[in-house]
Amino acid sequence: MSEAKVPVSSQAAPTQRERKPRVQPLRIAIFGFGTVGSSVARILVESKPAGLELTHVFNRGVERKRVDWAPESVVWSEDAEAVLASDVDVIVELAGGLDPAGEWVRRALEAGKSVITANKKLIAFHGVELERLAAAKGGHLKYGAAVAGGIPVIPAIEQGLAGDRIQRIEGILNGTCNFILSKMEEGAEYATVLDQAQQRGYAEADPTEDVGGFDARSKLAILMRLALRVAVDPEEIVPQPITTISAVDFSYARDLSCTIRQVARAEKSGGEVSATVGPMLVDLRSPLAWSRGTENMVILSGHYGGDVVFSGHGAGGQPTAVAVVSDLLALAHGSQRVEIPSTPGRVGGEFEVPHYIRFLVDDRPGIVAAITGALAKEEINIRAIVQKPGYPQHALPFVVTVEPCKSSALKRALASIHTMDCMREEPLDLQMLE
Amino acid sequence: MSEAKVPVSSQAAPTQRERKPRVQPLRIAIFGFGTVGSSVARILVESKPAGLELTHVFNRGVERKRVDWAPESVVWSEDAEAVLASDVDVIVELAGGLDPAGEWVRRALEAGKSVITANKKLIAFHGVELERLAAAKGGHLKYGAAVAGGIPVIPAIEQGLAGDRIQRIEGILNGTCNFILSKMEEGAEYATVLDQAQQRGYAEADPTEDVGGFDARSKLAILMRLALRVAVDPEEIVPQPITTISAVDFSYARDLSCTIRQVARAEKSGGEVSATVGPMLVDLRSPLAWSRGTENMVILSGHYGGDVVFSGHGAGGQPTAVAVVSDLLALAHGSQRVEIPSTPGRVGGEFEVPHYIRFLVDDRPGIVAAITGALAKEEINIRAIVQKPGYPQHALPFVVTVEPCKSSALKRALASIHTMDCMREEPLDLQMLE
Repeated sequence: MSEAKVPVSSQAAPTQRERKPRVQPLRIAIFGFGTVGSSVARILVESKPAGLELTHVFNRGVERKRVDWAPESVVWSEDAEAVLASDVDVIVELAGGLDPAGEWVRRALEAGKSVITANKKLIAFHGVELERLAAAKGGHLKYGAAVAGGIPVIPAIEQGLAGDRIQRIEGILNGTCNFILSKMEEGAEYATVLDQAQQRGYAEADPTEDVGGFDARSKLAILMRLALRVAVDPEEIVPQPITTISAVDFSYARDLSCTIRQVARAEKSGGEVSATVGPMLVDLRSPLAWSRGTENMVILSGHYGGDVVFSGHGAGGQPTAVAVVSDLLALAHGSQRVEIPSTPGRVGGEFEVPHYIRFLVDDRPGIVAAITGALAKEEINIRAIVQKPGYPQHALPFVVTVEPCKSSALKRALASIHTMDCMREEPLDLQMLE
Repeated sequence: MSEAKVPVSSQAAPTQRERKPRVQPLRIAIFGFGTVGSSVARILVESKPAGLELTHVFNRGVERKRVDWAPESVVWSEDAEAVLASDVDVIVELAGGLDPAGEWVRRALEAGKSVITANKKLIAFHGVELERLAAAKGGHLKYGAAVAGGIPVIPAIEQGLAGDRIQRIEGILNGTCNFILSKMEEGAEYATVLDQAQQRGYAEADPTEDVGGFDARSKLAILMRLALRVAVDPEEIVPQPITTISAVDFSYARDLSCTIRQVARAEKSGGEVSATVGPMLVDLRSPLAWSRGTENMVILSGHYGGDVVFSGHGAGGQPTAVAVVSDLLALAHGSQRVEIPSTPGRVGGEFEVPHYIRFLVDDRPGIVAAITGALAKEEINIRAIVQKPGYPQHALPFVVTVEPCKSSALKRALASIHTMDCMREEPLDLQMLE
C-alpha cells in the first residue's frame, strides 16, 4: 500500500500514549459497498487509523464493486452468511432499510459482534431492542451516521450535552428537501428541481421517502430518544409532504420576512411530547433559514445550556463515512457511550404556534368574512391577511396568518372552510417557526 | 432533598439497562465555588444524575459561599490539602489560572484521581503533560468546558470527527469580545460597551485577557491539538487586540459587505502550521457574522467531511456547567476519550489572505501614490481603495483592501508606509475572512 497517503497521526511520535492499546486491530466487514461504503473503505485505506482493519466487503454481485485500491487481503463476498460467520469483530451495515439489513444486524449482535450503522430507519424503529441485544451479548451498537451524516450531533448529545435536560429539537434533517426548497426559494419550479436532484444523485427515483417526510421522521425519532429521552413509535409522527408548496408560497413567505424549509421539530413540556415534520415558514433571521443546498442543521434547546446549533453536510459519501469511521475509532479505543436511559412515550402533544394558511379561491364577495368567521368560532386570532395582486380572480391565492393556536382547533376550522363552494383546493396549512 | 426537582430520567423506568453499573457513585469535589461551580452543584442537586455525588466544596473563605440547597452531607472546606487527601474520586477544578490550580490538578492526578476542568490556560500550556500524568496514574483528565463552554465541540471532535483529517479551524471563542464588537456594529462606542460588559459580568475589571486575545489564544491552542493534532506553545500565537478598532472601521466594513469579529483561526497545510487571533473582517454572509452578543462559534473544515459549524453559549455559569456535568457523566459511564495523538509543532506558517488596511492621514497630494507604490514594491495587489466623505482633512481615515498576500510582505510595506510624514497613526491591518 505504498501509494496510499500516510496521515500525520501515524507518521509522528505520539505525545500521548494510548491508555489501552489493542494488540489486535478490529476486523471490519462492510455490508453494502455503495457511495458511503466505498468512502469508508477509502478513509480506512488512505488514513490507516490505528486499530482498524478492513477485512471483508459484502455486496450483492460484489464483483462489479471490487476496487483496485483496497488491500489484497480484503475478502469480497456475496455470501452474507459466510461473512457473519467469519471472525470479523464489527459489521458496518450500510445497506439501509429494515430488511434484510435488520436481520444481519441482529445476527451480528447475537454473535457478540459490534455493529456500526447509518441505517436511520432501522434505528428509529428498532433501536431500543437492538441496543438491549447488544448490551446482553457484550457487543456495541453505534449509529452516529444515522442522523445528519457528517454533523456529529449524536456524539455531542451523548458526550457533551448529557448533563443538560434538552427540551426542544428543531432540525433540517433531509438534504434532498432542503436542496429542493432552497432552489425553489431562488425561483425554480418543484418538478425541475426534483429532476435536478435526481440527476445529481441527491434524490431517489421514487422520492417519497424524502419529500414525504419519512426520512426526516426516522431521524427525528432517533434524536428524540437521545435528546428528549423519550422512545416513540415513529409512525406516531405524521409527516406533511413538501409537494404541496408552490412558487406563490415562497412569494408570500418573503412578504412575511420568512422562507420555507422542511423542518423536523419535537418538544417535551409538562409531560407532553409533541413532534412533527413538514414544510414550515422560517424567519429569515433564524439559523434554519441559513441552510442551503443539501446542508443539514440541528438546534437543541437545553434547560441549562440554552440553544446549541450544529450544521454541516448531512449526507453524501464522505461526510457520512467520517461518522462511521469515528464510531469505529471510538470502538477501538474502548470508548463507552454515555447511555442515556429513555422512557417509552406517545406523541400526544400539540404545538401551539402561529400558522400560515394559504387559500386558493374562486373570488367572490363575502369570502374573507366567511373564513374569518370560521376561525373566530374556534377562537383563533388572525395576525395578518395578505393578498397580492396579479393573480386570476377564479384561482386567487391569498394568505391568512394566525396567532399561536392548537393544531386541533385550526384543523376543525379549516375542515369547515374547505366545504365552502369557493375553495378551489384544500387550504395549505404550515406551521410558522418563531 | 424533597424540595429538589426530580428529573424525568430518574423518575422513569429505563428502557436500556446500563452496561456497567457503578456500585458506588463518583465522589466529587468542586474547587472554586463561583458562578460555574455553583451551577455545577445546582445541576447535581436538581437533576441527580445517576452515579454522581457532590461530597466536597473547596473555596477560600468558604463560609460566605455556603448555600442552603446543597445536601447536608457536603463538606465545605478552605483546606485544599485536606480535600485532596480525602476519598474523593474526582476534582472539578474551576478556580482558573495556572497557579495554584495547576498544582491542585497535578496533586489530584498524582494520587490517581480524575480531574474535570474548565481551565483553558492550564490545558493550553500544560495539557499534554497533564494527560500523560493522568494516563500514567490511571486517572482521567477531561476539559470539555475549557473551549466554547456550552458548545460540545471537544466531545464532537474526539468522538464524532476523529475519522476525519481536520485542516482548518475558525472560531469566535471569546464572548466578551463578541459582545463588544457586535454592539459596536450597532453603533456603540468601545468604552461604553466595555463598561456595560463589565457591569453585566461579561468582562473583568482588567479586560486584557479577553480584549487582548489571550483567552481566545488558549482555546485555539487546545482546539489545534485536538483537531489539527499539533501541540503548539500558545505563546507562539501572537494575538492582536480589538482595542484598535473604531466606529469608522465598522462603517468601512459595511461598505465592503462585511462586519468585524474577533476570530481565532488556524490551519495546517503542507506541513506548515499557521495560527492567529484578532479582529478580522468577516463577510456578512459568513456564519461567523451571525454570532451576536456573547455567543461562540466554531467552524471545523475536514478533508473528508467538509465544514461543520457549531454555535451556542460559549460562557456563562449554566452552559459551562453542562459541559462539566457531561464530562462527569462520561467518567461515571466509563467512557474513554478517543485519544488522538498529537505531535509537537511550531506556528511557522503565514496566512495568505486578503487584508483590510485603514490609514489615518493628514491629507495632502501624493499620499495614495506613495502608499500604492510601497505596496507594489512588495508585489501586493490592490483590490479596492475606499474613502468616505465627511471626515476632517487633517485626520482623514481611508481604506485599502489588498488581494491575498503573505503577512510578512504586507508588514514590510506597512512599516515603510508608517514612516511617511502624513501618517497620523500606525495603519490598522486586519485579515479578511472569505
